[in-house]
Amino acid sequence: MVNCIRLNSVLRATGRALSTTAGKKQRPLAAETSDQHHGTRNNFSDVQSVRHEQARHSVLIGCPARINENKFLKYLSQYGEVASHFFFDSNGTHAVVEFVDLQSVESLLSGTKIPNDEDLFVVPYKSRYIRVKTTEVGQQAASSLTPPPPPQSPPASRVFQLCPLLSALEEQAHVLQDELQLTEESVRLRYLVSSLISDIATAYFPEATVHLYGSSVNSFGKMGCDLDLFLNLEDIKGYKSGKTPSSYSAEFWMRRVSSGRTAQQKILSVIGECIDSFGPGCNEVQKILNARCPLVRFSHQSSGLQCDLTADNKIALRSSELLYIYGNLDHRVRPLVFSLRCWARVHGITSCIPGQWITNFSLTMMVLFFLQKRNPPVIPTLDQLKNLAGKKEKIMVDGNDCTFVGDLNKIKQSANTESLDTLLIEFLEFYGKFDFRTNCIDIRKGIEKNKPEAAALYIQNPFEQTLNISKNVNQSQLQKFVNLTQESAFTLQDQARRSSKNGKPWGLASILQTTSSDKGATTKRNKKVSASERIGSLLDSLKDNGNTGKTEAEH
Amino acid sequence: MVNCIRLNSVLRATGRALSTTAGKKQRPLAAETSDQHHGTRNNFSDVQSVRHEQARHSVLIGCPARINENKFLKYLSQYGEVASHFFFDSNGTHAVVEFVDLQSVESLLSGTKIPNDEDLFVVPYKSRYIRVKTTEVGQQAASSLTPPPPPQSPPASRVFQLCPLLSALEEQAHVLQDELQLTEESVRLRYLVSSLISDIATAYFPEATVHLYGSSVNSFGKMGCDLDLFLNLEDIKGYKSGKTPSSYSAEFWMRRVSSGRTAQQKILSVIGECIDSFGPGCNEVQKILNARCPLVRFSHQSSGLQCDLTADNKIALRSSELLYIYGNLDHRVRPLVFSLRCWARVHGITSCIPGQWITNFSLTMMVLFFLQKRNPPVIPTLDQLKNLAGKKEKIMVDGNDCTFVGDLNKIKQSANTESLDTLLIEFLEFYGKFDFRTNCIDIRKGIEKNKPEAAALYIQNPFEQTLNISKNVNQSQLQKFVNLTQESAFTLQDQARRSSKNGKPWGLASILQTTSSDKGATTKRNKKVSASERIGSLLDSLKDNGNTGKTEAEH
Repeated sequence: MVNCIRLNSVLRATGRALSTTAGKKQRPLAAETSDQHHGTRNNFSDVQSVRHEQARHSVLIGCPARINENKFLKYLSQYGEVASHFFFDSNGTHAVVEFVDLQSVESLLSGTKIPNDEDLFVVPYKSRYIRVKTTEVGQQAASSLTPPPPPQSPPASRVFQLCPLLSALEEQAHVLQDELQLTEESVRLRYLVSSLISDIATAYFPEATVHLYGSSVNSFGKMGCDLDLFLNLEDIKGYKSGKTPSSYSAEFWMRRVSSGRTAQQKILSVIGECIDSFGPGCNEVQKILNARCPLVRFSHQSSGLQCDLTADNKIALRSSELLYIYGNLDHRVRPLVFSLRCWARVHGITSCIPGQWITNFSLTMMVLFFLQKRNPPVIPTLDQLKNLAGKKEKIMVDGNDCTFVGDLNKIKQSANTESLDTLLIEFLEFYGKFDFRTNCIDIRKGIEKNKPEAAALYIQNPFEQTLNISKNVNQSQLQKFVNLTQESAFTLQDQARRSSKNGKPWGLASILQTTSSDKGATTKRNKKVSASERIGSLLDSLKDNGNTGKTEAEH
Repeated sequence: MVNCIRLNSVLRATGRALSTTAGKKQRPLAAETSDQHHGTRNNFSDVQSVRHEQARHSVLIGCPARINENKFLKYLSQYGEVASHFFFDSNGTHAVVEFVDLQSVESLLSGTKIPNDEDLFVVPYKSRYIRVKTTEVGQQAASSLTPPPPPQSPPASRVFQLCPLLSALEEQAHVLQDELQLTEESVRLRYLVSSLISDIATAYFPEATVHLYGSSVNSFGKMGCDLDLFLNLEDIKGYKSGKTPSSYSAEFWMRRVSSGRTAQQKILSVIGECIDSFGPGCNEVQKILNARCPLVRFSHQSSGLQCDLTADNKIALRSSELLYIYGNLDHRVRPLVFSLRCWARVHGITSCIPGQWITNFSLTMMVLFFLQKRNPPVIPTLDQLKNLAGKKEKIMVDGNDCTFVGDLNKIKQSANTESLDTLLIEFLEFYGKFDFRTNCIDIRKGIEKNKPEAAALYIQNPFEQTLNISKNVNQSQLQKFVNLTQESAFTLQDQARRSSKNGKPWGLASILQTTSSDKGATTKRNKKVSASERIGSLLDSLKDNGNTGKTEAEH
């Protein structure tokens, strides 16, 4: 009857789809989970609103380590029908439980106590993060405890085992993507954390909303990536104007400040205080209010998520939607991006620490530009998406044109039929020969243009068109990237020519290994590390980024 | 039709009762406003709940300097029926408007804009403090503006003019009380400010409540006194227990802290941040979190009120109720206390700065103790009030017995019929002869007891019975007090004996003048200042205390 997934850790979760408790058919939630070759595809805003609703109906529950799932669900069902649930282990066993009705959440909370053990003092902020304890009745029935399902083998080692057996580079790319991408559970958990933070942030601004942006929603997010949130205060401005002209009009008496930025800083500062003082499961709160985009950074310990909350960041949200569209328009985009990100990380082209490295966002832009340049193109240019936009999609943000079509079904499928293998090799060749000295990359036009200013690598920001998103990259890093594309292209072409699979790494695995050029001091003897080992440890390190520090900005 | 009071300033408001807009009979609100000789008397808790409800239905409105009252009311009436309103001037013209229905407040707010002039940036926190502006339509009709009512003569000078004409000391005492005590408007404004702060403080703690305590509610408050508030978090603890025994129980996941005090500090700190960043009309916010009773102090500029917000302070609330009961039990208590406070302030016995001076609270306790000692007593002892208490009034706070009857109508009226004149003289004689060296004052028993520990003046805290509320007073201040009682008693007795009213100050006025013993360096020529002048400037200074600094603690 009950069908549920237990994860060793959301961070290590497999990509299995979530089963609903009641065995109902799950609502289609994201374009990436539906079959892209058939039927309609979900638009970004639809996915967001469904996810937000799910989150509002959900409760985060800390559970005893050994919990009897049937009894747990029976306990919950006294408050209302459970729509879905899953368990995960992160600082103890937790469950995310979604109820069918909002009222059930309220009912559960009204039956929830404040911890009142002696010598235990708490800040009595009530949220949808609760803890379920075994009662005496439960203790007596402890003998009938269902043992927890056996822990799954670490997913990283699955690639390790599978890779050599897979028959094509394309299959390897899909395994990589499956391992790296956000699982259904992780996405649900992210929206729930956002919803909990929203409850804090909107206590004083009831019309405000908290949005997820960046890798959590742009369809290129990997397990463990940061949770980027922004507080949208725009909707506060609404009011009902009187029907008849009157001698008087009313406005709120509000604290005046010197700039919109100061207002954002004040608001974020207070929210930061609140998260720091009340936020259940939140710690390591840092207010970074003097940054270009002021933010509050904190760790949501119970979910293992690093969170960044900024005020107004609508351009970043548009940017996320644009990536979502590209990621869901063609089935080859995401595996290609995931493979190339993995490849770049192995060779130290990208890094989890800020610096002169190419960012994941820049690399993704390079992939998109390359796909626009194929003949016929795999994906349309941003200008083509703009021309398809409806009236409501004509959006200007701070003077920047962020107009593009949001309805995936209005965008014609590509006539390009190249295989993922071909595209991967062609990508490497394309950038191996690209004239970075003269040209800039621009996904808006989809053509090379002269660089407007000196920079080793110039990738035009698609919305803030005067900005270079890769101005951090220096010449030596760029050269490293170019050399690597040439080397990897050669390796793959050589394989294709020889078709030799006699025990040696091949396909993706062959280019996912470091060479002496990556690690200067490595001796020749050790220079080639086993590809499988590399992939295994790489995947683990990629997934753990979210726990150890902030990765690069990603939009 | 419209009947409304315009005040030059709430701080200088006269004691006229508020007329309701619709000409309806005003609800009886406080024992002190009803005729104490006839009919039932309002209990403290009833007054508090009526006042809180009024405040919830009220809006604070900043108005143009010259406002047409009828048009203003017509404008407001489009949102619902106005129950009462009044104007006052404090940092510009303001109005407090109470609506009959809560819905009308919401309706008004939903028709209220966020200020959106160019170059004007605000923190968009919406409260019930708004600003009404004249529209173009209103400008066109400006010629029909009703001129504002003429400013009233400063109230202090009324005493100045009236005092010599009054025929009895008792009448003088009543005039003093009328001038000094809180007006209906000031009380409403205080509850409204409390309600606005409550909206901020309870955003995260919906079940929490904000209470007024101290001089704003104990019936001994004077115009300009501080607004003492406390945040009651007790009611957060409630929850509905499940009907059937279950294997699990739920509790909120809350931030753990080392003590209840730390929790209070965290909560007050965040609320302090919110008031500082959003609180409309609030400024000069200070967090005094390391005090014995952690507090947030701020100035509510638009009302001219100095506010202190503490967390849990239930003993202080019981203390306020006890004073309220004593103040409303017998008609002689309040004029006697007001007169003696005025007398003590003139002679430097009390002061608006903390130090070795006798506090108003201590002086009030001395008056109460004296009244318990009359034969027959004017007021009962605290133990007698305790014996009258019902089951619900048996209240322990942190191990301290705070039990006493709350229903004024259960307390028998005193058989004592002494005049206010007599009581005033007797008070002076009583403390002129009191054996402060040996005895302590205890309103719980109403009898002198041996001092439990060395202190110039020992007045037992009625609830925290091991504490001396006047331990700050040193021997020289006490001696000054004793000398003054003797001097003043002599002056009044001398007058009574000679019955001379030939132009010289007499009655209260005669003892409300300073002598050389009060001001050491004053020359003999100037040593007697005109009594009327003294009273006038004294009243002004008494009323202005709230604006210039914190006065002594008062419960």
